[in-house]
Amino acid sequence: MKITVWNENRHEQKNPRVKEVYPNGIHGAIAGFLEKSGLDVTCATLDEPDHGLTEDVLNQTDVLVWWGHIAHDEVRDEIVDKVHDRVLNGMGLIVLHSGHFSKIFKKLMGTSCNLKWREADENERLWVIDPAHPIAEGLGEYIDLDKEEMYGEHFDIPTPDELVFVSWFAGGEIFRSGCTYRRGQGKIFYFQPGHETYPTYYHQDIQQVIINAVRWAKPSPRSKPAYGNAKPLEKI
Amino acid sequence: MKITVWNENRHEQKNPRVKEVYPNGIHGAIAGFLEKSGLDVTCATLDEPDHGLTEDVLNQTDVLVWWGHIAHDEVRDEIVDKVHDRVLNGMGLIVLHSGHFSKIFKKLMGTSCNLKWREADENERLWVIDPAHPIAEGLGEYIDLDKEEMYGEHFDIPTPDELVFVSWFAGGEIFRSGCTYRRGQGKIFYFQPGHETYPTYYHQDIQQVIINAVRWAKPSPRSKPAYGNAKPLEKI
Amino acid sequence: MKITVWNENRHEQKNPRVKEVYPNGIHGAIAGFLEKSGLDVTCATLDEPDHGLTEDVLNQTDVLVWWGHIAHDEVRDEIVDKVHDRVLNGMGLIVLHSGHFSKIFKKLMGTSCNLKWREADENERLWVIDPAHPIAEGLGEYIDLDKEEMYGEHFDIPTPDELVFVSWFAGGEIFRSGCTYRRGQGKIFYFQPGHETYPTYYHQDIQQVIINAVRWAKPSPRSKPAYGNAKPLEKI
Amino acid sequence: MKITVWNENRHEQKNPRVKEVYPNGIHGAIAGFLEKSGLDVTCATLDEPDHGLTEDVLNQTDVLVWWGHIAHDEVRDEIVDKVHDRVLNGMGLIVLHSGHFSKIFKKLMGTSCNLKWREADENERLWVIDPAHPIAEGLGEYIDLDKEEMYGEHFDIPTPDELVFVSWFAGGEIFRSGCTYRRGQGKIFYFQPGHETYPTYYHQDIQQVIINAVRWAKPSPRSKPAYGNAKPLEKI
Repeated sequence: MKITVWNENRHEQKNPRVKEVYPNGIHGAIAGFLEKSGLDVTCATLDEPDHGLTEDVLNQTDVLVWWGHIAHDEVRDEIVDKVHDRVLNGMGLIVLHSGHFSKIFKKLMGTSCNLKWREADENERLWVIDPAHPIAEGLGEYIDLDKEEMYGEHFDIPTPDELVFVSWFAGGEIFRSGCTYRRGQGKIFYFQPGHETYPTYYHQDIQQVIINAVRWAKPSPRSKPAYGNAKPLEKI
Repeated sequence: MKITVWNENRHEQKNPRVKEVYPNGIHGAIAGFLEKSGLDVTCATLDEPDHGLTEDVLNQTDVLVWWGHIAHDEVRDEIVDKVHDRVLNGMGLIVLHSGHFSKIFKKLMGTSCNLKWREADENERLWVIDPAHPIAEGLGEYIDLDKEEMYGEHFDIPTPDELVFVSWFAGGEIFRSGCTYRRGQGKIFYFQPGHETYPTYYHQDIQQVIINAVRWAKPSPRSKPAYGNAKPLEKI
Repeated sequence: MKITVWNENRHEQKNPRVKEVYPNGIHGAIAGFLEKSGLDVTCATLDEPDHGLTEDVLNQTDVLVWWGHIAHDEVRDEIVDKVHDRVLNGMGLIVLHSGHFSKIFKKLMGTSCNLKWREADENERLWVIDPAHPIAEGLGEYIDLDKEEMYGEHFDIPTPDELVFVSWFAGGEIFRSGCTYRRGQGKIFYFQPGHETYPTYYHQDIQQVIINAVRWAKPSPRSKPAYGNAKPLEKI
Repeated sequence: MKITVWNENRHEQKNPRVKEVYPNGIHGAIAGFLEKSGLDVTCATLDEPDHGLTEDVLNQTDVLVWWGHIAHDEVRDEIVDKVHDRVLNGMGLIVLHSGHFSKIFKKLMGTSCNLKWREADENERLWVIDPAHPIAEGLGEYIDLDKEEMYGEHFDIPTPDELVFVSWFAGGEIFRSGCTYRRGQGKIFYFQPGHETYPTYYHQDIQQVIINAVRWAKPSPRSKPAYGNAKPLEKI
């Protein structure tokens, strides 16, 4: 199983505070704990040719992890189309935090993916709504994050196929923070935590969720659907 | 459209504080605002013969509202079976607050319907997750209750067909507080607020939700399903 | 409630057999029975300026009915974007037959919307899977179409929010032929029958379904979601 | 992983034709191919003490397979309650064919589970609706059964969490023949084929589905939900 961690990698270049929290980039931090868990991981970033997502890379990727924020518009449409096509053909996709507004997530969801937000160093609690889901394996009742950016409802997404986490924020909002979708043959997981100025991706439970999600999203052997003009079936 | 409001009506007899909040019983308060909205309402309580739910009453009821708490076990199984049968045949059912543990709700859900709770006069905010749902019509972004009993996850229910509200509690929990289900031909809505010691059912937004839910749960003309041994279809 | 029936209107110009079946166009036939049922209907077609879907028309449309087939690519992207935006803001959308491959349906679904098909004058039976759904109101157990184009699984769509019809075809296939979705504030219904060479839209039950669907998809008063940067809530 | 195959085992005693098709009982046939696939399997039947489902057996069972038909009523309620409790606590359950009317399935579903049926040696085709589902792994586009009992809609079940198969019958009906549910911590799969007079359980694809389903339904490590009176959370 091959994992590609994609990161916009812009905050890290511009904002010393982010650089300090994530000296190897957000992608570096995520790739780090995925590798430690025994997975085969490479990274790709926006400013590489083809954003690091060449056909070869995409064809060999089983699960793609996506972090983006201030440069969604710079991701070229033809690359988005290729990622989309790969998801429909079985590649898993883990969309993190501000990736809710990425072209690829909006294209897969079909909605605005709009939400509310506030940067106010608020305590967040991610409650496990679906304790038997493999993405929640190994967790307690909730994940407690000292400080995160608030993301609040209404979150304009299709009803999730499975709702794994709902978050509580100290400021008074709630948010559907862990949502699974199936699109074509591919599995998608949106996971809300991970604002660039907080050390969220060093939190052990957050790492556990992302490791679980990557394993869950792995394409599996399956029956082959057929499309197009169909001959009459033989037996009838 | 005929509405029956069923109430256990025991707290009101034993607890002066509840009697003070609901001098006409919880059923009286609910029937009051439903009537004011133009609906045809009667009440039924546990200690009446057949708990007030005779076959005649049930057959004429389009939507049944249910409040129970300390005497779930005293509701006779054959009455529960009749209510169950009526729901499968199209009668709407609105289950309130501690009714999550009623025989009829557990029988319809097939799960334990267990949850967490705390009586600590906590502020509750019910966020609208599904703003286009008819049950949310006329509300703002959320309903703000000064004090309610905390109900928290994990709530052991089947995944709701539609999730209309998720609640935030000041003490740190969240809860899927407004859930719809379809069972047989009947529509079911579970709505969490309404602890007996708080004046919740006098809150305008809570009344609006229950009025909306009753209208939504109304049985509608429909196609007739058929069951049993089937003759071959003619044309083949 | 204002209905707009949109039709590509190309088969009718090129194929005498289609012209014979639908002398006033497929849109004319659909508009006809919708009007008879008391609805306020106008038509729009591909070759009109802006495909007949100006901002004024779209803003005044409560439910849009869509039939297209051989010219999906000629529908301009900026018009598709406007229709998409209107759906997310509450306009209902009824997508018919080969409209499964329209830009607007694919944009809303996020999948390929691919399927199997065969033109072989096959008997189709649309079984009602959800007899209490308002779209099935007034029907019997199934709709029997003497001849239709076969559409077969696998149909590459997100799991429908509600599955109202599943079709049986004499040649051996089945198809999820009546599917509802909610996207943003808008309701969407995909309905499979209606190949251009068959008189399907004159069939009384098919008309009933489309009339029901239009009424079901009507935008309703609702709570107002809020998005963007949120101030702290007052009470906390 | 320990599998228990439960069979009513009555047809086999009374009907020579069934005895001929399944000389070791339906349970024997199912246990046979499950064992061949490497699983640890034991059998239990109605006429054993406690129907072979003692607390010890149930506590050690990871996935229970259930076949019953003419003696549903003889299954004692307290055994059903124990099976139910085990499912809610994580035991997988595979319900086969006429098990749709078993006490345990009805208790978990909350509906009548009624359907249509006809014994007429009809060709059945089970189409894969969800080709990426692990239960469909290794199959082609559909499973072709020469002769089976027709089961037709309307099938009075809650909307399945996932719809894996829909069947086509030569006589003109369709049926949701492969449905998954989650109830509590347990996974449930209903699978329609398997009338006692046909050699269905010797069909390689049917065996593959049941093997896949048993593996899918295995309880997995998970987060632990908590219930009951909850102390205030520490941090707030």
